[in-house]
Amino acid sequence: MEKLKVLFHINENERWEVLIGNATNLLKDVGKEGVDIAVVANGPSVSGYTDEKKLSAMKDLAEKGAKFIACRNSLKKMCSGKDGCINEEMLSAFIQIVPAGITAIARKQTEGYAYVKP
Amino acid sequence: MEKLKVLFHINENERWEVLIGNATNLLKDVGKEGVDIAVVANGPSVSGYTDEKKLSAMKDLAEKGAKFIACRNSLKKMCSGKDGCINEEMLSAFIQIVPAGITAIARKQTEGYAYVKP
Amino acid sequence: MEKLKVLFHINENERWEVLIGNATNLLKDVGKEGVDIAVVANGPSVSGYTDEKKLSAMKDLAEKGAKFIACRNSLKKMCSGKDGCINEEMLSAFIQIVPAGITAIARKQTEGYAYVKP
Repeated sequence: MEKLKVLFHINENERWEVLIGNATNLLKDVGKEGVDIAVVANGPSVSGYTDEKKLSAMKDLAEKGAKFIACRNSLKKMCSGKDGCINEEMLSAFIQIVPAGITAIARKQTEGYAYVKP
Repeated sequence: MEKLKVLFHINENERWEVLIGNATNLLKDVGKEGVDIAVVANGPSVSGYTDEKKLSAMKDLAEKGAKFIACRNSLKKMCSGKDGCINEEMLSAFIQIVPAGITAIARKQTEGYAYVKP
Repeated sequence: MEKLKVLFHINENERWEVLIGNATNLLKDVGKEGVDIAVVANGPSVSGYTDEKKLSAMKDLAEKGAKFIACRNSLKKMCSGKDGCINEEMLSAFIQIVPAGITAIARKQTEGYAYVKP
């Protein structure tokens, strides 16, 4: 069967646990050869990229091929929030930064990725 | 006009009423000959498949051709929650069980289904 | 690069601020020549179409080509809620009304629009 392409969109920080569970189940079900996974985080969810416990689970997924993407607009916006700035240079190397998460979400769908909002 | 294909994704049990309303309105608008509807429930939303009132509304939709799918991973996970296990054999006959709901959600989109998260 | 087509789906009135931010960032990133934006509001989110502050931001987006669509089923349903009826004739001229928002959401995806739920 054709390799699946799945895009997970997250914009609320509370949804990471669900997303990580979903991606883990997907990989268990079809195997890492059976799916390309991309995760695009925008809005307050980008702060998940600074959470050690979440990062550990993400890294496991990244080692199975999942791509993790952060929205630069959202990273910048954190500076005006209560949790403070996220320094791009502090982010783990497996996280790719794009200028606008929404553009990446749309572009991935034109590349045949299925959209999932956990 | 070409027959529509619509996939409803639900993962929170609180969203069933909205989903059922959406699917009902869709069928009223284009007729059962005008659309193929699939509903994939994962996460805590699978407990909706044991709620008599919701089941009654789902059955009406199923009689108009809507397919209802449950994620086995999610059914199993219920055993560790406060509401207790859901026994697969107790589910209504019109509900199909798949190993991983996320895979079904992705696969349906490759088959041309539009994604809707109610 | 090919022009993007992006469909924003909103069904909760609390999500307008996020949606407007997302659409604004998208337009900043790719320019109004780079994307066709459609916004479909159903459920309680249709009351956003009567909020002056939100309308002002929407109008800015509409002037950059974004299409705003309201679900008639949802407008009618407001009559039974605490905020009362929304009179179709009172809506701003840039808002298009369709019989069923869900049909529009599905149809747009068959036309190549990427789905985003802000």
